[in-house]
Amino acid sequence: MKMNKLRIVPLGGLGEIGKNMMILEYGDDIVVIDAGLMFPNEEMLGVDFVIPDISYLLQKQQKIRGIIVTHGHEDHIGALPYVLSLLPVPVYATLFTRDLIALKLKNRGVKAEPELHVIPSDGKITLGNFVIRFFSVCHSIPDAVGLVIETPLGVIVHSGDFKIDHTPVMGEVTDVGRLASVGNKGVLLLFSDSTYAELPGHGVSEVVVGETLDNIVAGASGRVIITTFASLVSRIQQVIDVAAKHERRVAIIGRSMKELVKAAMATGYLHVPPDVMGRFEDIKGLPHNRVILLTTGSQGEPTSALVRIANRDRRSQVHIVPGDTVVVSATPIPGNEMLVNRTIDALFRQGARVIYNKLAQVHVHGHGSQEDLKLLLRLVKPKFFIPVHGEYRHLSLHAMLAQSVGIPRENIFVLEDGDILELQREAGKVEGKAPVGGDIYVNGSVTGKMDAVALQERKLLSQDGVVMVSVVVDSKSGRLQGKPCVKMKGLIASRESQALIERSQEVLFSALNDKGGISPEADLLEAQVKEVLSRFFYQEVHRHPVIVPIVARV
Amino acid sequence: MKMNKLRIVPLGGLGEIGKNMMILEYGDDIVVIDAGLMFPNEEMLGVDFVIPDISYLLQKQQKIRGIIVTHGHEDHIGALPYVLSLLPVPVYATLFTRDLIALKLKNRGVKAEPELHVIPSDGKITLGNFVIRFFSVCHSIPDAVGLVIETPLGVIVHSGDFKIDHTPVMGEVTDVGRLASVGNKGVLLLFSDSTYAELPGHGVSEVVVGETLDNIVAGASGRVIITTFASLVSRIQQVIDVAAKHERRVAIIGRSMKELVKAAMATGYLHVPPDVMGRFEDIKGLPHNRVILLTTGSQGEPTSALVRIANRDRRSQVHIVPGDTVVVSATPIPGNEMLVNRTIDALFRQGARVIYNKLAQVHVHGHGSQEDLKLLLRLVKPKFFIPVHGEYRHLSLHAMLAQSVGIPRENIFVLEDGDILELQREAGKVEGKAPVGGDIYVNGSVTGKMDAVALQERKLLSQDGVVMVSVVVDSKSGRLQGKPCVKMKGLIASRESQALIERSQEVLFSALNDKGGISPEADLLEAQVKEVLSRFFYQEVHRHPVIVPIVARV
Repeated sequence: MKMNKLRIVPLGGLGEIGKNMMILEYGDDIVVIDAGLMFPNEEMLGVDFVIPDISYLLQKQQKIRGIIVTHGHEDHIGALPYVLSLLPVPVYATLFTRDLIALKLKNRGVKAEPELHVIPSDGKITLGNFVIRFFSVCHSIPDAVGLVIETPLGVIVHSGDFKIDHTPVMGEVTDVGRLASVGNKGVLLLFSDSTYAELPGHGVSEVVVGETLDNIVAGASGRVIITTFASLVSRIQQVIDVAAKHERRVAIIGRSMKELVKAAMATGYLHVPPDVMGRFEDIKGLPHNRVILLTTGSQGEPTSALVRIANRDRRSQVHIVPGDTVVVSATPIPGNEMLVNRTIDALFRQGARVIYNKLAQVHVHGHGSQEDLKLLLRLVKPKFFIPVHGEYRHLSLHAMLAQSVGIPRENIFVLEDGDILELQREAGKVEGKAPVGGDIYVNGSVTGKMDAVALQERKLLSQDGVVMVSVVVDSKSGRLQGKPCVKMKGLIASRESQALIERSQEVLFSALNDKGGISPEADLLEAQVKEVLSRFFYQEVHRHPVIVPIVARV
Repeated sequence: MKMNKLRIVPLGGLGEIGKNMMILEYGDDIVVIDAGLMFPNEEMLGVDFVIPDISYLLQKQQKIRGIIVTHGHEDHIGALPYVLSLLPVPVYATLFTRDLIALKLKNRGVKAEPELHVIPSDGKITLGNFVIRFFSVCHSIPDAVGLVIETPLGVIVHSGDFKIDHTPVMGEVTDVGRLASVGNKGVLLLFSDSTYAELPGHGVSEVVVGETLDNIVAGASGRVIITTFASLVSRIQQVIDVAAKHERRVAIIGRSMKELVKAAMATGYLHVPPDVMGRFEDIKGLPHNRVILLTTGSQGEPTSALVRIANRDRRSQVHIVPGDTVVVSATPIPGNEMLVNRTIDALFRQGARVIYNKLAQVHVHGHGSQEDLKLLLRLVKPKFFIPVHGEYRHLSLHAMLAQSVGIPRENIFVLEDGDILELQREAGKVEGKAPVGGDIYVNGSVTGKMDAVALQERKLLSQDGVVMVSVVVDSKSGRLQGKPCVKMKGLIASRESQALIERSQEVLFSALNDKGGISPEADLLEAQVKEVLSRFFYQEVHRHPVIVPIVARV
């Protein structure tokens, strides 16, 4: 055995929320945990989403034994269509997670048939030097798991995304007994979810949401329209249970939720009593106090069912009438606040009563708060600790929590994407950096490294627009052929642009003719054009558009 | 008297947070309340800020008796430089507000000397048919007031921005006794601040923040670096008081905070015991547990003192060392979350302990919560009610609160910007709309109506960039003169762009030559170019750049 160290290489999810991917490497074996995407921040203009840079894996392709997926959220499975097309390795996941992966591969048009293995939520996989056992965790999607991984150096526990809820809706408690038993035998290293490390106290149980929904439906005189995440099957179960209790029928509006509910019913994750569910056409004739509508659109997505309802879109089957109550049973993902708020505003304008998380406990999130994180640390009692899944402040705060429960500071590694940690039984050290500098941006349906230059150009274009100039020079005489032609986009209001264009053409024409002839070198002439026009536009409208000259010589 | 109706025309702040401006009109008199700006949302690309559309006022210029300003925040004074340059009318405000207005006019380079009247916080102004009396309110800036306005129809109360804090830091309680007395005599109409109408319960007193700061400073082994809003003078007072108690000295880092502290000390709003304040140069040699630094940067502003510290900028006087504690005594204004979070992350990376509002009560906001809003409604007991200062959901929720304390639904008007409400003693009705459709966008130092077209162009440019094409046609032969020239910005990574440009030029050249000659009409030729290149770029890189052809004929 050449190497008796364990290499730990996070390729995504450390120093950011999203695109989770963790690499474990020992000897000739690599195991990958999760392959997620991240939604772009406001500076990544024109970018649909971001996936991890897998250059490190591509160099060591022959070592990769498989990808373990802890659950079916986008930040854990969203990069699989791209990763599997480059690395055709087997994938291991629970049943519901496998279904979501298959759906995603189909929707993304991936033709290859990847090797997708279904593992029970207490199942075991042996991949080279690694023996991986799943354990159930409670999270905001069915069939989520954490991992207990035997390695030649000792046992590693990976929490996945988890929370502690002793009274969940669907029986998926985090298996504290199992964790205690693993912890009592000795754990080398714990990876744990830091997403909510800022939040003091314990998480609130889903039971509370059930009670709130029950009160709202009991008190509503008309229809209740409820939106939530399509994959939050336990919330959908609660809505169905409340509907059954109050003798209301439920119709689903929105394709993605219909798809997911169908899948969850087929696999038995969702239990629907007879006569509760119906098509909208079937139940729309019922008295309004017998109706619940479940819709997509909890993030204010512009083409979702709820947004169409809010905007009184002609294509919507449903229109708000007095007496309607709308419940937004979700919180905005960071970046979506404006869209969600605008949807709520529009629903109020239509006359609906809207209830959202600021007003009542109609949602609880899926990650452990500080006391939950401490409980996991106390149960697992790891020698080493690595906080995962979070921006830097979440990781730092989680590290402070770990210190507060007695893990020595030198045994806690606050890593960021690309750090290569080499761990031995007694100590660990960051020994290098895997290439993650150039994130991969997915834009349209093409994958490629977007460089900082192109993003910076988009930013400049978005600020003050662009001015194009075509200059034709007679190469014999060295004189301009006619006036320069100027066009502009996004600089000023369109009704004022024609006059500005004409003046700019005149100014440029006389400036170039006055300078005692045109520069014979295209580069110099372009620089001249830029200089004259930059000054002109700043003087005229106090702005700095991007100026693009094109010189043609005839 | 031709008109015995009171006209109420909100020109800003209703249906949005920001650019507050309310118009009261009776007979030949108009009074304007506030003239604020609004920060752009993420869709207003390249826009610095937005100010109200004052077309309605410009039509009735001779009627305007003055502008009353309730306090010195940007969303109440920020439009004054622009409004006063078009409407040279007198402005009435308290001393601290007047100082901030004067500072703003100076910083914006307004040369005219507007008529700025200082009114005490219990003072009175008579403007035509309106007799206006100030009353103190507690808000997050000194010298904030609400208004009691006598009109021929009855008394109007305007809350300004307010909260109820019975133990504020600087004696500025909201004058509940005065309001009760006004309410007992009968009030026709109340305008009240809706900004926090979503928040249940009572607001938290500033006293709590003082205790938290005291605990943090008492427990800190090194320097404490505190950032807050420069205008939040009461918070600065608390920092100074805590410093004095713990025998620390305070230095201020950041120009705008220095300016404001100087002004607040000069006018007596800030009380600094001797030997507490010092220049950074003077106190940097002290032991670190004797030092507090007060800095700008609470919103993560890229050029602020705190952000330079966080980024270890060479130009910063201060660098984080182990033992430093940073307190962010503010919450991010919506839209600034990413900048603030990034600053906190960078401070953690530098090794600082960072304490912000999610972790401890180091900030309380300046607006009344639901129970505070109900208290005001109960004290004032208005016949009619108009919720102001809020997005539509805030106004709707505030209207529901008013109903819950007994105001009949038909006496509550949920207005939006531009609505012209005509109010009589017994009823009111929206009778028209003032022009506010085209918001005014301030971009660079120029004011002008930005149209939707230019903003849409910026959005498209920011998504997939722009491709410029210059085509030179020989007008005699009708043939291309050489190959078309293509340039691009923001489409793809720069190292790949040259090859793509060359292929696009070839494709375009052969497409145009194949078509049996060039279209003699420039418009048709441009359309041809766009079509060929749109298809080309979509096939090649699956994107839709803005394509701008320029045809020159020689």
